[in-house]
Amino acid sequence: MTLDPRDWPAFRKLAHEALDVAIDYVEDIRERPVWQPIPDDLRAALRTAAMPTEPTPLTAVFEEFRETILPYATGNVHPRFYGWVHGSGTPSGIVADLLASAMNANVGGRDHGAVEIERQVLRWCCDLFGFPPEASGLLVTGTSLANALGIAVARGATGGTERRAVYASATAHNSIDKALRLCGYPSGTLRKIPVDEFDRIDLAALDAQIAIDRAAGVVPAIMVASAGTVDAGAFDDLQALADRRDAHDMWLHVDGAFGALVILAPTLRDRLAGIDRVDSLAFDFHKWMHVPYDAGALLVRDGAKHRAAFATAASYLKSTARGIAGGAPWFTDFGIDLSRGFRALKIWFAIKEFGTKQIGALIEENCAQAARLGERIAASEVCELSLPVQLNIVCFRYRPPGLGGPALDALNEAIALDLAESGIAVVSTTAVGGRRVLRVNLTNHRTTDADLARTFEAICEAGARLASAGVP
Amino acid sequence: MTLDPRDWPAFRKLAHEALDVAIDYVEDIRERPVWQPIPDDLRAALRTAAMPTEPTPLTAVFEEFRETILPYATGNVHPRFYGWVHGSGTPSGIVADLLASAMNANVGGRDHGAVEIERQVLRWCCDLFGFPPEASGLLVTGTSLANALGIAVARGATGGTERRAVYASATAHNSIDKALRLCGYPSGTLRKIPVDEFDRIDLAALDAQIAIDRAAGVVPAIMVASAGTVDAGAFDDLQALADRRDAHDMWLHVDGAFGALVILAPTLRDRLAGIDRVDSLAFDFHKWMHVPYDAGALLVRDGAKHRAAFATAASYLKSTARGIAGGAPWFTDFGIDLSRGFRALKIWFAIKEFGTKQIGALIEENCAQAARLGERIAASEVCELSLPVQLNIVCFRYRPPGLGGPALDALNEAIALDLAESGIAVVSTTAVGGRRVLRVNLTNHRTTDADLARTFEAICEAGARLASAGVP
Repeated sequence: MTLDPRDWPAFRKLAHEALDVAIDYVEDIRERPVWQPIPDDLRAALRTAAMPTEPTPLTAVFEEFRETILPYATGNVHPRFYGWVHGSGTPSGIVADLLASAMNANVGGRDHGAVEIERQVLRWCCDLFGFPPEASGLLVTGTSLANALGIAVARGATGGTERRAVYASATAHNSIDKALRLCGYPSGTLRKIPVDEFDRIDLAALDAQIAIDRAAGVVPAIMVASAGTVDAGAFDDLQALADRRDAHDMWLHVDGAFGALVILAPTLRDRLAGIDRVDSLAFDFHKWMHVPYDAGALLVRDGAKHRAAFATAASYLKSTARGIAGGAPWFTDFGIDLSRGFRALKIWFAIKEFGTKQIGALIEENCAQAARLGERIAASEVCELSLPVQLNIVCFRYRPPGLGGPALDALNEAIALDLAESGIAVVSTTAVGGRRVLRVNLTNHRTTDADLARTFEAICEAGARLASAGVP
Repeated sequence: MTLDPRDWPAFRKLAHEALDVAIDYVEDIRERPVWQPIPDDLRAALRTAAMPTEPTPLTAVFEEFRETILPYATGNVHPRFYGWVHGSGTPSGIVADLLASAMNANVGGRDHGAVEIERQVLRWCCDLFGFPPEASGLLVTGTSLANALGIAVARGATGGTERRAVYASATAHNSIDKALRLCGYPSGTLRKIPVDEFDRIDLAALDAQIAIDRAAGVVPAIMVASAGTVDAGAFDDLQALADRRDAHDMWLHVDGAFGALVILAPTLRDRLAGIDRVDSLAFDFHKWMHVPYDAGALLVRDGAKHRAAFATAASYLKSTARGIAGGAPWFTDFGIDLSRGFRALKIWFAIKEFGTKQIGALIEENCAQAARLGERIAASEVCELSLPVQLNIVCFRYRPPGLGGPALDALNEAIALDLAESGIAVVSTTAVGGRRVLRVNLTNHRTTDADLARTFEAICEAGARLASAGVP
């Protein structure tokens, strides 16, 4: 008895069929709607089907997948997906993933190839950001978790959670709030410092808050810098923050979810000046490197502090000097997971195949596209920019003459909804200055200028149509 | 400019070649050593190669993978891998993974098929363990993280971390220590309660400790039960613990990393009696369901408490009543990750293809194999059982006449090393009663009785050879 196929040739045939379907899916992505709603009857069936006790032929499982799951994707593989910050994936990511699946490595520890590949990828990243040889790292699901683990390291290095102040900009990502909460910081620990006109942390306001905290006997412990804010794509001034870290003996963590990879883009990398001075950095590979979900990393300048935050001793996990139980230090001592998948492989494939220059060039291209879209909006009579375009994000409103207030908010929400339901494009919405606005995010290597032109036209068309129909 | 292939047919050809290599890898696994060390020169090359700036043809990346990574696997796909608790993977897991990679879904939220599939898988699990309709769940990397998130939910439900006591058996997994540390509990919060002869939490000792804590003004807050301890495969008495939970208004979390799935095995499931009364449960799919790494789950009886521990509001994550931003509640509100891969698909494939009965039968077979190996060891003159075989784990020593103490510990370590380096089998070691012992773990759907016989003979041969050579 085994879970292996009884008929290997038949299995192999099905697997190759599935691979063709997978490749077709990406190759033909332009021919399909960006997104389409799940039909009500399908949803109801999914929500009531009982757990199967008996086997189903793999061919039937695959057919069910093709009919009921594949058509209802998030949409982020499509060239006209600009919602939130999603990467687009790559065909070669499929190859890396199927190979990783076959190896089925557990990269928690021990001595085997997958561990060395994760080490290599992490060393490359440490080198890239100018971290020293004693730096450490860990691949994780994504930046939210990496932020949480980074905060846990910082907590250990800064003396715990009591009477401690943590600083981040008012526009820092909500994963910072979640990280502090998970790590047991009392609510109110996070000081949300106002931002300047470019959405960067206001340094004078930061200094003032630190002084207030010191005067109150609260220890300034951690600063969290944003390298790429969600709505403006702003980078906090890392040099200035590192100076304050030095002056106050704090920990400086960077949330670089999508922004950290501008290190690869020659015309943008100066925004990260000072990144080689920070204590820890969290960022994603599944965004601007387009590695399939999920893949992020935490890097820590002082590897010993990193390990101290998570290492434990367990008799059943004793490592040896040589043999399969060798390979110390084990990755499990640098994070929470003991069982860890081989997510390093898809990153390794992407970096090798594309090379860092090409990834950097695509990041620059997305930013140039955002700038061009911004110019188009600025020149439009029915749209207005809600924030200056600094990076790859365009926040704007469709604003026909005579409309404002909540009705305008609702109109823009309706436009985003209409666009997605039409299958033409996916944009998200956000709040800027208390108003609901459209948000076009470009972390998409498939988007062309023609895609953006079509999207902008569709927004204007939907806006006019919905407004004239009295929507909302 | 895009990361898609310029030559789609050539890419497709390479992808199919890679798939054949992946399938061959699993089909021919018996013909290869379980494990082999990474050559020193390869390791050195991996540790010094610089990050590539220029592109490399995908065919060359794939060839490098074949030569430098694939031969140096952990070994857990092999039928004679019994180290630690690793699942074996399945060929159809490769199919599920390549499809998930093509879709590249982000299952953090929004309204799309992958979200519904994760919901379905989680609902099946909630039903399986007798959790009520208001229960919730989240797929995560594995049980270690699920334990940490479960503790975070419990912390919120039991009033914080100060002057709180947490109880687990002395043999509970070290991920519990890590979870408490991550969540900010003061060191010393965890009471490691002695175990009975079967490695289960000693209920009288637990009651005594609770009384001591109450008398000292410390609030008994959380009990963590083990469903399958690492060395003995023991199950704490969930009914008894649930009674104490009720009496003291505590939270009862279960670490069921591999053991929870005995719910599928008719002859074993009574060990989980009371599982339908617990507050939260963490377990893995990549162990005894053999889903490719990584895949675990957290289930929480009271979904509202689960959500309360993690939900936040962010303007850029506002969900809508319909459209792609629909699909509330979003999974990101039930954990830390915002970007979440489509790990539900491989679980869905496994449950559908195999059916729960077959998975349960394989669990029973592994336990029967462990029992038979235990009988063989008990009848042997050169080996001795270190713990009674209760489930799927056999802890024992090679013990030739006249050898004891540290020399015997070292001999058994040397046997495990020799076995792995010979490529015949992988067993791990652990400490039982202060002595180093061999540990054979059966969470392997490919292991046959012939594999176990060969392994036992190899252990005896290596033991005799190493002992006569004066090793160590």
